Amino acid sequence: MIILGLDPSLSCTGWGVIRSEGSRITHVANGQIKTDAKAPMAERLAALQSGLAGVIAKYQPERAAAEEVFVNKNPQSTLKLAQARGAVLAACGAVGLAVHEHAARKVKKAVVGTGAADKNQVQAMLKVLLPGANVAGADAADALAVAIADVHLAPRT
Amino acid sequence: MIILGLDPSLSCTGWGVIRSEGSRITHVANGQIKTDAKAPMAERLAALQSGLAGVIAKYQPERAAAEEVFVNKNPQSTLKLAQARGAVLAACGAVGLAVHEHAARKVKKAVVGTGAADKNQVQAMLKVLLPGANVAGADAADALAVAIADVHLAPRT
Repeated sequence: MIILGLDPSLSCTGWGVIRSEGSRITHVANGQIKTDAKAPMAERLAALQSGLAGVIAKYQPERAAAEEVFVNKNPQSTLKLAQARGAVLAACGAVGLAVHEHAARKVKKAVVGTGAADKNQVQAMLKVLLPGANVAGADAADALAVAIADVHLAPRT
Repeated sequence: MIILGLDPSLSCTGWGVIRSEGSRITHVANGQIKTDAKAPMAERLAALQSGLAGVIAKYQPERAAAEEVFVNKNPQSTLKLAQARGAVLAACGAVGLAVHEHAARKVKKAVVGTGAADKNQVQAMLKVLLPGANVAGADAADALAVAIADVHLAPRT
């Protein structure tokens, strides 16, 4: 089973692909899709989609996962994030890929063992769970974490 | 000049296409793209995009416009709206169509003459400005209004 984890944001969307076989998980690939802050919004959202469409075409994930959206106190930040998320989810939907949504606490609990884990603990655990993976950055790390969590949290199919 | 007006929402996205020649505007087409409330989010967003891609391919607009997003007091409503908006804007960006954003007050002022106009006044004015147009519903009416406003408000190209 190939699983795509996603950490959508307008400036930099992280993605991570893992393979799950029985109780074993292995790293396949990860990366970050950045957009030009000076470009018009519609163009940036389209760039996220085309970048992600390339990832999906290359790795052919059978399911996808993202953290439940975080509602920022700043409405403008929430809007930007949610618009990026809409573009990212639509790119998955366009190829029939459902996106499971998991609460951030549950992702941390699944990866580290505690829902209160910080980013450093999550990244340290990624090194243990996906040895040798060269992680592209913090957003790619979050995407790999949600992919791993999805192995445990997703409804069995 | 063919102008596409958009009123994005997850359940029902309105669209309206007008032609602007000098000081004359004429109605071309309008409609609403509805999504299945029971379908997964990614699928609904993809449905909005494919519906809109069909509209763009058919009418070949040269520019597009939408109202500036309204930040709802309910964060969950804002999220849904913004995700739908992200999918809609990305569909425009994918074909190189920039989307001008106009404040709701400015749209009302451009169409009715006062920024405090209510929906009934806007719809009554649409009948005057676009005689004979068969408007598909309230969302399509809002989309036509923002397209008309764009004629007056958009930067000259």
